[in-house]
Formats: sequence, C-alpha cells, structure tokens
Amino acid sequence: MKASEQIQVEVVLVHAPVVNKIGETIGSAVTNLDLHDIARAGKTFGVETFWVVTPYEEQQNLVNQITSHWTAGHGGKVASDRAEALSIIKVSPDLESVIASSTKKNGRKPFILTTCAKALTNELHYEAVRDKIFDGEPVMLLFGTAWGLAPSVMEIADATLPPLKGGSSFNHLSVRSAVSIILDRLLSVDRY
Amino acid sequence: MKASEQIQVEVVLVHAPVVNKIGETIGSAVTNLDLHDIARAGKTFGVETFWVVTPYEEQQNLVNQITSHWTAGHGGKVASDRAEALSIIKVSPDLESVIASSTKKNGRKPFILTTCAKALTNELHYEAVRDKIFDGEPVMLLFGTAWGLAPSVMEIADATLPPLKGGSSFNHLSVRSAVSIILDRLLSVDRY
Repeated sequence: MKASEQIQVEVVLVHAPVVNKIGETIGSAVTNLDLHDIARAGKTFGVETFWVVTPYEEQQNLVNQITSHWTAGHGGKVASDRAEALSIIKVSPDLESVIASSTKKNGRKPFILTTCAKALTNELHYEAVRDKIFDGEPVMLLFGTAWGLAPSVMEIADATLPPLKGGSSFNHLSVRSAVSIILDRLLSVDRY
Repeated sequence: MKASEQIQVEVVLVHAPVVNKIGETIGSAVTNLDLHDIARAGKTFGVETFWVVTPYEEQQNLVNQITSHWTAGHGGKVASDRAEALSIIKVSPDLESVIASSTKKNGRKPFILTTCAKALTNELHYEAVRDKIFDGEPVMLLFGTAWGLAPSVMEIADATLPPLKGGSSFNHLSVRSAVSIILDRLLSVDRY
C-alpha cells in the first residue's frame, strides 16, 4: 500500500441532473452545510478536490462567495482549519467539464464510481475500490443531492458502490453522512 | 454474532458541558441539522435512542418543537421516513439523567464511551466495542458539540474511542460526520 499522499481521489457533489421524490430529473439548490461537512471530511481523508456541480450561475456565485469568505475573507482569519478544508472546493457547471479537467490533470480518465441507496448490477465492493485507490489509480466519487443521481449519470459510471447497510430496513442517510462513511471506508488508515 | 435487533446502543449529543476553542467549559446551542443527520444515521444503524443533552429550557423546547413537527406535525405527513428517524430523539437536561434512564431500562449501567479528536490513554478499539455491542452489552456513545466534551465528561467514561484517521494531518470533522463514521464502524453489517 502506497503512502496516502499519492492517492488521487476526487469527490463530486451533483446538484443537476438529480431526481426528485417521484423520479423526475431536476436541479437542486446548494446547501451551505454540505460544503462545510464534505470539505472537512474530504480534507481529513486526503481528497484532492471536492467538486460542486451546478448549472445555475447564481448558485455557482453562492458557492464561490461561501468558499472565498472562509479561504480569502474574514472567516479564514478566525478559523484557519476551515480555510484549509474549504480550499479543496471547486465549482463546475456540469459533470463533463469535471471529468475533462481530471483527465487533463492526471493524464488519464478517472475511474468513475456512483453511489446509490439501492443495489445495482454494476457493483464494485469497497475493498476493491480501496485497492484501486492505493494502487494510485485516479478515482472519482459521484454523489447526488435531492433523491439521488439521475439515470443519465448512473449510465456513465464505471461501477457503483453497494448501498450502506446498517442492520435496519431504514436507509435514508443525509448525503453528508453518506460521503463521510464512504470516505472512511475507502480512505481511512487506521481501520485494519 | 447476534441479530442486530438485539443491540442496545444509545447516542448522546452533549451541548453542555463542552469546551470552547480555548478550552473553557461552556454550553453550546443546538444545531437543527445535527438532529436530522444524527437521527437518520442512528435509525439506519439501529440506534435505540438519540439523546440531546442541554440544560437550557428554551433549547429543550426548540428540540421538542423540531422533532414534533416531523413526528406528529405536518412534516411527518409529507415525509414519513423523517418521522421515523426523528422519533428516536429524546431530550434531557443532563448526562446523569440519561445514564440513570438507560440503567433503569436495561437493568444495568451501560458501557460509556467517549469520543475525542486526540488520542487518550483509556482507548478501546472499534473491533472490541463492536464485540461488546453484538454480545448484547448496552453501550452509550457520547459526542461533544463545540470543541468537544468537557474533561468532567471524559472522566466518567469507561473508555474512549481512538481518533479517526484519514491519512492527512487535518482532523476537523463535523460532529455529524464523526457520528456517522463511528456508527458505521461499530454497527454496519456489510463491511466484513
């Protein structure tokens, strides 16, 4: 297993296209605490970039305002750890641009993984993904807001992570919880 | 390993006594999203009760208003999964009452675990705690808001969980992320 500074993992939080409660494809609004919680978890687990995907210019501006407050503005002066965490955030209008940017940076297309609360046929288990990551393969993890990623996003994935199972029939984690748990499963260095 | 419906795990989110940035003992304010995220994670992983500890009557009322909106009120009618999650929340003015209530219910004192971002001397590893839980021992997990649990709380614990390690020197997870990851490590049924 290589040292963790050599891992190349990117997290993508998708606000469009996602689905609503009845399965229609929609765009969702950015949640302030998603940015903070996922940036903090990302920074803890060595994630290179936390991409926030939204096609809406006003929402892109909102994300940039929040992150610059905590990195370049007053927030960063009083809470340097928050500055460090939020510095990994980048905004993009669509997933295609994110994949293109990652491919250019790493010199190869990342292995794209989606996440889903339901079991799908193209599952790849956590251990297998850990191996890829610690072998130095670029891995991109896609998470959906609202009721999850749209079918068009699921289709471009190389594989899907199995749903998290907690021993109950209830399966409604927040995206903040799901990202945190999945990063721990894939990237923690103290578990085994 | 017993079936997960036999586990007896309680989560306690402490708002007082906790410490602030410079180590002074304080009381913190309740955060709405802590209630939702931790209740949803708790319900997913089979936690019996999610205790919210605050000595302030106005804050206790706030928690009760939020939970009743989602369980008995309009919120529960439009989102039954949220009703199910938030129904595990109970409010208490202090930790002593929580421990007394648990002891009375289970007929024995729970094994009390604290969590800390720093390494302490009374550590018990995740695997050992999992074993206790699936052997049917009542376990109570204490989490601090603000900058963490006050020393007086750490002193009453039977043991402390080791800090989560993500392969970076950065260690500033939100309490929502920390609870989610720890519940997954202790209670998930699909990991091994």
